[in-house]
Amino acid sequence: MPDFGRVAIIGGGSWATAIAKVVVEHTGHIGWYMRRDDRISDFRRLGHNPAYLTGVHFDIDDIEFTSDINEIATEYDTLVFVTPSPYLKDHLKKLTADISHKFIVTAIKGIVPGEDVVCSDYFHQRYGVPYRQLLCIGGPSHAEEVALERLTYLTVAGSDEKMAREFSRVLACDYVKTETSTDVTGIEYAAVLKNVYAICAGICNGMGYGDNFQAVFLTNAIREMDRFLTAVNPVHRNICDSVYLGDLLVTGYSNFSRNRTFGMMIGKGYSIKSAQAEMKMVAEGYYGTKCMEEINRQLHVSMPILDAVYDILYKDLRPRDVIPALTEKLS
Amino acid sequence: MPDFGRVAIIGGGSWATAIAKVVVEHTGHIGWYMRRDDRISDFRRLGHNPAYLTGVHFDIDDIEFTSDINEIATEYDTLVFVTPSPYLKDHLKKLTADISHKFIVTAIKGIVPGEDVVCSDYFHQRYGVPYRQLLCIGGPSHAEEVALERLTYLTVAGSDEKMAREFSRVLACDYVKTETSTDVTGIEYAAVLKNVYAICAGICNGMGYGDNFQAVFLTNAIREMDRFLTAVNPVHRNICDSVYLGDLLVTGYSNFSRNRTFGMMIGKGYSIKSAQAEMKMVAEGYYGTKCMEEINRQLHVSMPILDAVYDILYKDLRPRDVIPALTEKLS
Repeated sequence: MPDFGRVAIIGGGSWATAIAKVVVEHTGHIGWYMRRDDRISDFRRLGHNPAYLTGVHFDIDDIEFTSDINEIATEYDTLVFVTPSPYLKDHLKKLTADISHKFIVTAIKGIVPGEDVVCSDYFHQRYGVPYRQLLCIGGPSHAEEVALERLTYLTVAGSDEKMAREFSRVLACDYVKTETSTDVTGIEYAAVLKNVYAICAGICNGMGYGDNFQAVFLTNAIREMDRFLTAVNPVHRNICDSVYLGDLLVTGYSNFSRNRTFGMMIGKGYSIKSAQAEMKMVAEGYYGTKCMEEINRQLHVSMPILDAVYDILYKDLRPRDVIPALTEKLS
Repeated sequence: MPDFGRVAIIGGGSWATAIAKVVVEHTGHIGWYMRRDDRISDFRRLGHNPAYLTGVHFDIDDIEFTSDINEIATEYDTLVFVTPSPYLKDHLKKLTADISHKFIVTAIKGIVPGEDVVCSDYFHQRYGVPYRQLLCIGGPSHAEEVALERLTYLTVAGSDEKMAREFSRVLACDYVKTETSTDVTGIEYAAVLKNVYAICAGICNGMGYGDNFQAVFLTNAIREMDRFLTAVNPVHRNICDSVYLGDLLVTGYSNFSRNRTFGMMIGKGYSIKSAQAEMKMVAEGYYGTKCMEEINRQLHVSMPILDAVYDILYKDLRPRDVIPALTEKLS
């Protein structure tokens, strides 16, 4: 039986905070790396994350905070990475400690920009972490609902399913049910693609397409995702499992999704720059679109939705030209 | 090439009105059967359906109204049935004309109560209509959005796919794209089950389950539907096609769905009787639940969601006992 030892959270956003809550309820102690010292001192003083999920109170004595990534990487056995993917390399560039013997759990839902690989592959290739020690967490999971202890199903994936099952016990509780899977790569790509599709759902919604179309759009999106995952990691999977379809639905139908909101602004006629400026937040799918388009140049999977979003975000084509052409390709 | 001849609509609700709009724009003339003469005279006077989709204006000269079902069955070649399934037999009991040589198109989305068969089978068994002449219309389609000419994708199914393709041309227009299928029975059952699942989605929502759970619930619902359809009509189908998954999504996520609203009231603690009284409308899924449970007694498909809804609606078990037990069976 693997021993995950001391568990640390890397990242200070809402999903990191939700996972920290679930883990510390189970382990009684966590390490927690955040980049900003001022955030850490506010957290210590207030007893909650000063910026995200402020309603979730922590017992500060259970947490060892640090803004030194080498300290956390040295002292902890299992590192749970929960940063937005565009910032992952910024955090890691200060890392000098050897992490090749650690368990690395990614809950990042993104591709490493400039590398065009999913996070688990990046930790393997760049930091020499064996695949056996790499896990990922997926599933439909608004952090806000986990904070409110609303029933959520998470999937823990690992190439060694026993390992995934063991780690899933660190997350399982009254309001978190867990599944396991061996499809690490598929789940990581699915999490990236769902953000791309949420942007497109938002664009269409912003342009005035209705609920009938939204439903058809999402059925096309899940079939496109299935085609891509089959090409990139041809294992047996049911694309209707909650970690794939469920994650797409919770994002595609959510009015709180940053990606969907970003798309909606584009659909209403905002320029990409002004939509980004207005939102003051990263829509991960913006970067994901470019990475996926580049990866698919090698794979040649038929992905009309991805192509359409890429054309709008990176080739400056107008939604009112791109989307009607896309609707002709959907069924 | 089949000749669908003169087309008549049977039914006076919102989906009947939306289909009438689409058909008459194509054919220039329709027959239209409605049960109530007062509704017909109001329609003639106002130029629109007095009760449903009142914003859709018709040229009255294009429509031959009647409240005599034998007149319409005699004079028209293609009869499009769009009544709520619980009332179908009431309409048909006055029918004495032979319809065995007609084309029968069902857009009913229900099971014939007391017969436990889908509508196409009923027309075949009771009225001797050959399967070749039986078509059905499915797909995610809020009538209100068709009325507003928002892009909608419909699927026409027939055992003879050429026939289905021909009839789909009577529906296709700028705002309606059409697909064809040979899975008549599967599509009819899918349309019934999605109402059952929408009731359950409503119950859970009424009880306070959130968006993370809703997404997981719907992935379980589509897998349950897939298992049932495979058992009842084992043909090749992709359950992620819009006529199956799309129709489930548009209903399961809609706050305008009668079935979802009915379920939500049950979930909030209303008795079944008071929920029905409050709504003043039929939630077709209420009857569908009983029919499906009876049909599945022969097939023994694992359908924990259907069973849970049946237990709540017909065995008077409490949602707060049934739903937590159901969540243990979901993944």
